[in-house]
Amino acid sequence: MVVILKSNYDKEQLDRLTEWLADMNVEPHFTYGANQTIMGLVGDTSKIDIDMLHALDIVEDVKRIAEPFKKANRKFHPEDTVIEIAPGVKIGGGNLMVMAGPCSIESEEQLCGIAEAVKKSGANVLRGGAFKPRTSPYAFQGMREDGMKLLIKAKKKVGIPVVTEIMDYQHLPLFEDVDIIQVGARNMQNFELLKHLGRQDKPILLKRGLSNTLEELLMSAEYIMSEGNEKVILCERGIRTFETATRNTLDISAVPMLHSMTHLPVVIDPSHATGKSMAVPSMSLAGVVAGADGLIIEVHNNPAKALCDGAQSLTPEQFDDLSKRISEVKKFAYRK
Amino acid sequence: MVVILKSNYDKEQLDRLTEWLADMNVEPHFTYGANQTIMGLVGDTSKIDIDMLHALDIVEDVKRIAEPFKKANRKFHPEDTVIEIAPGVKIGGGNLMVMAGPCSIESEEQLCGIAEAVKKSGANVLRGGAFKPRTSPYAFQGMREDGMKLLIKAKKKVGIPVVTEIMDYQHLPLFEDVDIIQVGARNMQNFELLKHLGRQDKPILLKRGLSNTLEELLMSAEYIMSEGNEKVILCERGIRTFETATRNTLDISAVPMLHSMTHLPVVIDPSHATGKSMAVPSMSLAGVVAGADGLIIEVHNNPAKALCDGAQSLTPEQFDDLSKRISEVKKFAYRK
Amino acid sequence: MVVILKSNYDKEQLDRLTEWLADMNVEPHFTYGANQTIMGLVGDTSKIDIDMLHALDIVEDVKRIAEPFKKANRKFHPEDTVIEIAPGVKIGGGNLMVMAGPCSIESEEQLCGIAEAVKKSGANVLRGGAFKPRTSPYAFQGMREDGMKLLIKAKKKVGIPVVTEIMDYQHLPLFEDVDIIQVGARNMQNFELLKHLGRQDKPILLKRGLSNTLEELLMSAEYIMSEGNEKVILCERGIRTFETATRNTLDISAVPMLHSMTHLPVVIDPSHATGKSMAVPSMSLAGVVAGADGLIIEVHNNPAKALCDGAQSLTPEQFDDLSKRISEVKKFAYRK
Amino acid sequence: MVVILKSNYDKEQLDRLTEWLADMNVEPHFTYGANQTIMGLVGDTSKIDIDMLHALDIVEDVKRIAEPFKKANRKFHPEDTVIEIAPGVKIGGGNLMVMAGPCSIESEEQLCGIAEAVKKSGANVLRGGAFKPRTSPYAFQGMREDGMKLLIKAKKKVGIPVVTEIMDYQHLPLFEDVDIIQVGARNMQNFELLKHLGRQDKPILLKRGLSNTLEELLMSAEYIMSEGNEKVILCERGIRTFETATRNTLDISAVPMLHSMTHLPVVIDPSHATGKSMAVPSMSLAGVVAGADGLIIEVHNNPAKALCDGAQSLTPEQFDDLSKRISEVKKFAYRK
Repeated sequence: MVVILKSNYDKEQLDRLTEWLADMNVEPHFTYGANQTIMGLVGDTSKIDIDMLHALDIVEDVKRIAEPFKKANRKFHPEDTVIEIAPGVKIGGGNLMVMAGPCSIESEEQLCGIAEAVKKSGANVLRGGAFKPRTSPYAFQGMREDGMKLLIKAKKKVGIPVVTEIMDYQHLPLFEDVDIIQVGARNMQNFELLKHLGRQDKPILLKRGLSNTLEELLMSAEYIMSEGNEKVILCERGIRTFETATRNTLDISAVPMLHSMTHLPVVIDPSHATGKSMAVPSMSLAGVVAGADGLIIEVHNNPAKALCDGAQSLTPEQFDDLSKRISEVKKFAYRK
Repeated sequence: MVVILKSNYDKEQLDRLTEWLADMNVEPHFTYGANQTIMGLVGDTSKIDIDMLHALDIVEDVKRIAEPFKKANRKFHPEDTVIEIAPGVKIGGGNLMVMAGPCSIESEEQLCGIAEAVKKSGANVLRGGAFKPRTSPYAFQGMREDGMKLLIKAKKKVGIPVVTEIMDYQHLPLFEDVDIIQVGARNMQNFELLKHLGRQDKPILLKRGLSNTLEELLMSAEYIMSEGNEKVILCERGIRTFETATRNTLDISAVPMLHSMTHLPVVIDPSHATGKSMAVPSMSLAGVVAGADGLIIEVHNNPAKALCDGAQSLTPEQFDDLSKRISEVKKFAYRK
Repeated sequence: MVVILKSNYDKEQLDRLTEWLADMNVEPHFTYGANQTIMGLVGDTSKIDIDMLHALDIVEDVKRIAEPFKKANRKFHPEDTVIEIAPGVKIGGGNLMVMAGPCSIESEEQLCGIAEAVKKSGANVLRGGAFKPRTSPYAFQGMREDGMKLLIKAKKKVGIPVVTEIMDYQHLPLFEDVDIIQVGARNMQNFELLKHLGRQDKPILLKRGLSNTLEELLMSAEYIMSEGNEKVILCERGIRTFETATRNTLDISAVPMLHSMTHLPVVIDPSHATGKSMAVPSMSLAGVVAGADGLIIEVHNNPAKALCDGAQSLTPEQFDDLSKRISEVKKFAYRK
Repeated sequence: MVVILKSNYDKEQLDRLTEWLADMNVEPHFTYGANQTIMGLVGDTSKIDIDMLHALDIVEDVKRIAEPFKKANRKFHPEDTVIEIAPGVKIGGGNLMVMAGPCSIESEEQLCGIAEAVKKSGANVLRGGAFKPRTSPYAFQGMREDGMKLLIKAKKKVGIPVVTEIMDYQHLPLFEDVDIIQVGARNMQNFELLKHLGRQDKPILLKRGLSNTLEELLMSAEYIMSEGNEKVILCERGIRTFETATRNTLDISAVPMLHSMTHLPVVIDPSHATGKSMAVPSMSLAGVVAGADGLIIEVHNNPAKALCDGAQSLTPEQFDDLSKRISEVKKFAYRK
C-alpha cells in the first residue's frame, strides 16, 4: 500500500498514524519529493482499511498495490483448479464443460426431452431454472419446489449432472441432489448467501454481477472460499453498458484477465450476455478459443407450442450444430 | 405493447399468435406500411412476456408502451405518499426527513454521542449500520446483533427514530424496534428478501442498485408493495459509471424523474454517492432544492481516535453547519 | 509516480531503468517489502510516459500521483478564474452567468424574439446553434453561415453577448463577433481544433464529452491553455450511462469536484443532460446551489408553429419563472 | 415510427399534427386502447425529427421502428461488401485482413524492421501512427509530416499497403500514397472530417467511439457513404465501462451484431481494447472465430532500447506465433 501525504501535512498527526501502523505491524518507508511525501507500507496490509486512511486529514491519496483476494489468487496457487462435477465430468485445467438446457423448467416432458437432446449432442451438464429471479413480481417466478423435483427426475432418467440457481439459503435442503449450485448475477454480492454456500461442499457457479468488476467477482468467490468451500466456478455473463443492441455486453477479455488473476475455472454464458440466439454460436466459439473452461447455453425445444422459446435460446438442432463446431475449435483454445 | 412483424412473416404463424393473444384477452390492431406491419396490442398486456414475443420467428421487434409498475405508479395514485415514521416525523408531500449518523455502529458512547449531536442539529432520524455488506470477507462486517442492541439503546436514550440495514430476512426479529428498515444497493434485486419485507409493515428505505435503472428500482418497490407493504422510500445513492473522481455518480435527475413516475418519497444519499465528505454539503443542498423528500448523511465523531472517520463522513460541526444551510434553502425546493 | 516492481525482477533491467530515469532527471527511492519492491520517483515526472513504464518486463504496476494538468490546476493557481465576457458580464469567483436561447437558429424573428425575452428575464448571454452536430447526415445540420449572420444581428439588435458552437477551425473567421466559442461534447478530444482555439483569445465554453472523465476534461482545457488562451469555461452536460429515463446522466458532483481540482469556471447544461424540459428547472436550481458558475439553458418560443419545440426546451414563460427562482437561491450557493 | 398519445390528448393539437404529417407524406393509422391511443406512421419517416414529436404536448412517447441508416443497411444490400485495398489484398466476404505494426512511427529503421517482420509472418497491411491523438498536450504527438514520409518509404521498400490515422482533413494531401485512412475513436463523430473523407475515394477504417452505440457507428459510416465513398471498414476497439482490469472492454458481440445490421466489413482491435499485450492473442483468435473480417494489432520491436514498448504491443516473435494460430482457426470462423 502506498500513502501520499498532503504537502502541508501536520507532523503530529503523522506521528499518530505511524504509531497506529506500528500497532498493526506495518512499517512505513518514506520517499521525500519536492512537492510530495510518499509512504510505502511494508507488512501485512490486508487488515488496513483503505477508506480510513483516505479519511485522514494529512492524506492526499492511497493506492493499494497487493490484490485483496488470497485464496482465489493465482500467485499463491499457480496451478489451475480442476473440479470434478461427477464421474468423468471435470472443469478446469484443459477440461471443457458444456452446460445446456432451458432457461425455465416447465414440465417433465420438456425438461427430459431437452436433456436427452443436449446430452446426445455432447453437453455434459444439464441446466434448468426452478427458482427464477425476475425484475417484475408479476412475471412467472419459476416452478420452484416442483421444478426442483423435475430437475432431479431428469438427472436420474437421462443420466446427466445438473446445475440450477439458488436464491435463498433456506432452500438448501432442496439442492441435495444438485451437482452445481448457481448464484445469479443479482446475488453476486448477497454476502449472507455466499457465506452459507461456503459452509457446504457442492461446487458453486458464481455469476458476475451486472456492474461488478473482476476484482469484486473474485472477492465474492473469496467469501465462499474463506468459509471452506474452494470449488468455485466463475461465470462471465455480460455486463451492463450503454449499448442496447445486445442485452448486455459480453466481456470476453474477462477470460484471459481472470486466468491471469486466479486459478479458478472460468465459464462464458453467451445466452444471457447477448440476449440474442443469433449471436450465441459465434460468442460460444469465441469463448472457447479465448480459453474459457466452460460454456452455459440456453436450449429449448417445444415444437407444439412455438410461442414459448426465449429470444436467446437455441433449438436442439442449432445446439447440435454448435457442439460440432466447438469440438473442432477446442483444440485451438488459447493456452499460454 | 407494439409488435413489429418481419416483412416476410409467415401468415400461419401470425394466425397462431393472434389466437394465442385472444386467449390472453389481448386484441391486435394492425397498421400495414410499405415495408412493415405493426400490431398494436389492446387489453391488459401486463401478463404478456415480452421476451417470448421477441423470440418468435415472425417478430422483428417489440416495444413496451405501458410502464410495468402499478402500485408505485403515479398515474394510478396522483397524490404524494406521506409516510409517518414516528409521531411528528414524516416524509413525503413536502415533509423533509434528514437521517444522519455513523456508517458503522462502534460503541454505545460513539453512537449516543453522535445521536445527541445530530438530533440537536436538526436530524430527525438516526442512521447506523450493524450489519455491514463489505466487498471483502476480511473487512469488518459490523457489530451485527450487538450493534442492533446499541442502536435500540441509543434510540431510547436520545429519543430519535432509527434506520438500519437488513441483509437477511432471518434477522427480522432483531428489527422489531427499528423504525425504518434499509435495503442496501447490493440487495435491491434480492427478491426473496423483498417479498419477506413486503409481508411486514415497517417502512422500507430501498436503495437503488449500482447499475439499476429507475424502472428497475420501481419494480423492486413493486415486489414489496405487491405483498402488502406500501410504505416504501426510494433512495438514490449514486450509480456506477466510468468516472473515478467520485466513488459513484450521483444521479440527481432521479429526483424529478422519480417524482414524475411514482408517488413514493425519494431520498438522496450524498455520502455514499460521492465517497468524499468535501462534496457532501453541496450535494445535499442540490438534492433538497431539486425536490428530494429526504437526505441520509454520514456523520462521525471520534476525537480520541481520529483514525476512524470514513472518507465520506462529516463531523458533527460540519453537519450542524449543513443543517443550517438546509433550513435556509428548503423553502425554495422545486415543486411543480 | 510510484512504480511497483515484479517480485522476481531482473537486476540488470532495473539498472537500465534507473539510468534512463537519471537521464530524465528523475530519482528513484526504493522501499523493500517482503513481497514487493516499490520505487517512488522524485522529480518532474510529467514527461515520463506511464504506458512505457507499464510495458517493462520488470514492472508490475505504475500509479500516478501528481495530476497531469498544470495550467488548469488549482494547486498552482488557488484563486478562482474570473472571465469577463462583455462589459458587466462576468463568470467565476461568485459571478453567475446564465446563457439561454434556442437549440438551433431558425430565423431572425425567432432568434430576436427569444433573445429579447430571455434578456428581459435575466439571462446575460444568448445561446443559439448555427453549426449543429447531428448523429444522422440526413438530419438538419443547422443554418451554418446564414445562422451565424442572424446570431450577430440578434446580438447587436438586442444588446446581448452570444455563445455558439464551432465544429471546424476553418470556420473561425465567421466567429469574429461571437463572445464565447463553444466546443461540443463530441469534439472535446478533437485536439487539432483545441490547439487552434488556444491560438486565438476568445473565451471557450468546453463541453465534457459523453464518456470523458473530469481529468480528461481538464487535459482538453490544458490543450487550449498551453497554446496561450487561458479563458476556458468548463461545462458538465450529462454523461452516458445505462440509464434511459433521461437522455444522459447529469453528473452534478462534477461541480464540487472540478472546483477542487481547478480554478476555471464550471457551467451546468441541464437541457442536454436530461433531454426533458420537465427536469430542467429543478436541475438548474440544483446546479446553482451546488456552486456552479453558470447555466446554459434551451429556450424556444414559436407559438405559430408549435411543432418545433425541442423536448428539452423551456418556453420563455417557463424560463422567466425559473429565472426568478434562480435569483432567490443564488445567495445560498455552496461556497466552502 | 410509432407515436403513443397521452390519455387526455387535445383533439385540436392532434388535428394539427396529422395535417403536418400529411404535408410530410406520412399517414397515421390509429389503434385505440383502453388507456392509450397509438399512431403507427406509414410512409418515409426518415425526415421526421423524433425529438420534435417527443416535444409535443399530446405525445407521451415515440418509438422508432426502422433503422435510421440506409446505405450501410444490410436490408438494402444483402451481400457482404468486399473492399480491395491493393492488388491481392481484400477485406470482407470471407477475406481476412491482418493489419500490424507499431503504435507510433519512431524512425525508418524501426518502421521498416517491423514492416519486414510482420509481412513475413503474414500481415497484409502495415499500421503505424504519424499523427497521434494524445489526452495530454505534453505527451508525444507523433512524428506528424515526417512520420508520413517514413510510412510511405516503408510501404515502397517493403512492398506492403499501409493504414494510418488522420486527425484533420487539412492534412489530406499528405495521405495521397496511403492505402487506408483511419478515423480514430475520438473523431468518430467529428462530422466535418467525415464529410471530407466521403468526398475522396480511399477506404476508411472507422473506429467506434469510446461510448458510441453500434447504431451511432453506422450513422457515422453513413456520413462518409452519403458523400459518395462507400468503402468503409468498421472497427470495434473497446468501449468505456466501469471495469478497470482492461483499458476498455472489447465488445466482441459487435461482430455478429454488425454483420446482421450492415454489409460493411468489421475489424477487431484487441491491442487498444485491452491495453494488455497478454490478452491480445486470445482476443485476436476470439475475433477471428466470431467472424471478424480483419484484425489490427500493435507490434513493436526495439531490442536495443527496451524501454519503448507499449504495454499492449506484441513482439515480432509473439506476432509470428499468433499468425500461425490465426491461420489454424480461420477456417472455423463463424459464418451463418
